[in-house]
Amino acid sequence: MSKTEKKTTINSIGKYGLIERITANINIRNRSTIIAAGDDSAAVRYAEEGKLTLVSTDLMLEGIHFNLVYTPLKHLGYKAVIRAISDIYAMNGKPEQLLISLGIGSRFSVEEIEELYVGIALACKKYGIDIAGGDTTSSLTGLTIGVTAVGSVDSDRVIRRSGAGANDLICVTGDLGAAYMGLQLLERERKLFDQNSSVQPDLSGYEYIIGRQLKPEFPGELPDMLEKYNIIPTAMTDVSEGLASDLLQICQHSDKGCRLFPDKIPVDQETVRMAEEFRIDPLVPALNGGEDFELIFTVPLEFFEKIKKLKDVKVIGHITQPEYGCFIVTDEGEEIELEAQGWKK
Amino acid sequence: MSKTEKKTTINSIGKYGLIERITANINIRNRSTIIAAGDDSAAVRYAEEGKLTLVSTDLMLEGIHFNLVYTPLKHLGYKAVIRAISDIYAMNGKPEQLLISLGIGSRFSVEEIEELYVGIALACKKYGIDIAGGDTTSSLTGLTIGVTAVGSVDSDRVIRRSGAGANDLICVTGDLGAAYMGLQLLERERKLFDQNSSVQPDLSGYEYIIGRQLKPEFPGELPDMLEKYNIIPTAMTDVSEGLASDLLQICQHSDKGCRLFPDKIPVDQETVRMAEEFRIDPLVPALNGGEDFELIFTVPLEFFEKIKKLKDVKVIGHITQPEYGCFIVTDEGEEIELEAQGWKK
Repeated sequence: MSKTEKKTTINSIGKYGLIERITANINIRNRSTIIAAGDDSAAVRYAEEGKLTLVSTDLMLEGIHFNLVYTPLKHLGYKAVIRAISDIYAMNGKPEQLLISLGIGSRFSVEEIEELYVGIALACKKYGIDIAGGDTTSSLTGLTIGVTAVGSVDSDRVIRRSGAGANDLICVTGDLGAAYMGLQLLERERKLFDQNSSVQPDLSGYEYIIGRQLKPEFPGELPDMLEKYNIIPTAMTDVSEGLASDLLQICQHSDKGCRLFPDKIPVDQETVRMAEEFRIDPLVPALNGGEDFELIFTVPLEFFEKIKKLKDVKVIGHITQPEYGCFIVTDEGEEIELEAQGWKK
Repeated sequence: MSKTEKKTTINSIGKYGLIERITANINIRNRSTIIAAGDDSAAVRYAEEGKLTLVSTDLMLEGIHFNLVYTPLKHLGYKAVIRAISDIYAMNGKPEQLLISLGIGSRFSVEEIEELYVGIALACKKYGIDIAGGDTTSSLTGLTIGVTAVGSVDSDRVIRRSGAGANDLICVTGDLGAAYMGLQLLERERKLFDQNSSVQPDLSGYEYIIGRQLKPEFPGELPDMLEKYNIIPTAMTDVSEGLASDLLQICQHSDKGCRLFPDKIPVDQETVRMAEEFRIDPLVPALNGGEDFELIFTVPLEFFEKIKKLKDVKVIGHITQPEYGCFIVTDEGEEIELEAQGWKK
């Protein structure tokens, strides 16, 4: 929880008072933002011929998506933005507006909600996004954050999940599994602290994976890089549920199979070390960890040389005809069926 | 809760399985809906010259906005749609797409979520709206429903909260306070049932106010009526928080005052009777009840004769210069300051 000392109750300033406070310093950056906070709806204009408007929505619930014991509200606000915009990028679009809905339990003060908004505003500044409205309501339980992202894409450049072709390369940005191992570490230290509050959490040497969990970034530069090198992916999605689950989405929507090579999957050294401490195969968080906020996309074989030039992009496998199914191919050539994790978040 | 007998756990079909089930029978109605459910974002196109795209978002939380003891899931889905589209209508726009985010506690079955979607689909059919996407996640506590509505308006016909002029007439559709009194009745019967489960709820004679609470409609025909009679409101918003709160929003954003005449405020006879049973002045629910899902708008005096021709529209007061403040004028000529209710929902 926040260390802010001043505690103004939300009751004392009311719903509209709260909205005024948290939207007071909002600057509008994008020409497409016509009407922002302070009316019934936001209004945007993407009227250019051939432009599509993209709209996506995401829920983050306390206890499911975050634990405020070790999540600073500022970081949480930042991460909520990343989560929401990743769906717009996943269509090869550019996010330009956000609408933020908050369900706020009575234990939260105005100052704490302002701190959440500091993080939201920081991420919006970095990614060039306008806060264009939203809703606030009280909540009986914890904090609920609903984020709607709006953006646009040229209709001839939109990339769906459904276009992967047989023999296409499967590419992924950044590295995988770090956010999940960061979460395991934070949870372990929380449990130790719960048992004995004189024990201070020991997180040294694991700054990267903790950062990936608490304050992730998104490879927002990928669409420009793809355009620069004239690479047109056939299918794309963001890695949010976990590589396995999201790749299976591409295969299913494209009616294809795939082969994935575990030794090609980019995993950071900190992720490997932490997985070893927990005695789990680092492949497990890399495949099923989730919250990586990277992009997974497929490109025809002919782009292989170009893909190699892209910073932080790795080829991790290839698409097959559907009858071959979806499998991981181990070093020893063994094939293990690719499975999505269960119903979590 | 639903009476559905079959109970499939959501775990057994997973997140994507659930999304497939609830989106299986979705028909697309609007040409503006380009990509609907089944990808990372929805894509819409309102590319006509001069069109604005409107986006609005709403949260409904169990225990705050609804109680499943007396709210059928089908009705809840219907109401969630009405809540969301009312913000688009309030800008004089036409809603065309919805994105639905659900946070689902473990006690819910697939069949119950399908029932919620039956209500959502019914309302979408009636109001001509496409379900264009969303998100589902598990929840530690109750049901969370986030609805994002997307629509459009000609940019020269958008009506904001901020355009009311001195001497403008204040107009309202339908009648007010019914949903609130319906809720009071349902809550009273629930408490009686909690004390003695052999007592059957007695709701006869109050079908209208219960309907207004559980399955409200929206005066979606108003924009067309205004266009037909060539009436251009100067300011508009939907009555969702309550007449007092929403009218004060218009006054504040327009930098004006107002005079409201209680005997002009439309209140249904059932609302009056129920208020009398509860020994409260019917004016209280009419001013502060909320969830009326009506439209409040202001028009210049010259439209008075035209307004009288509109079905279900009443003139309830007028706008003043700001220095006169916001007051209710009683039959006896007494002026009582208009105040918004507190932080509720």
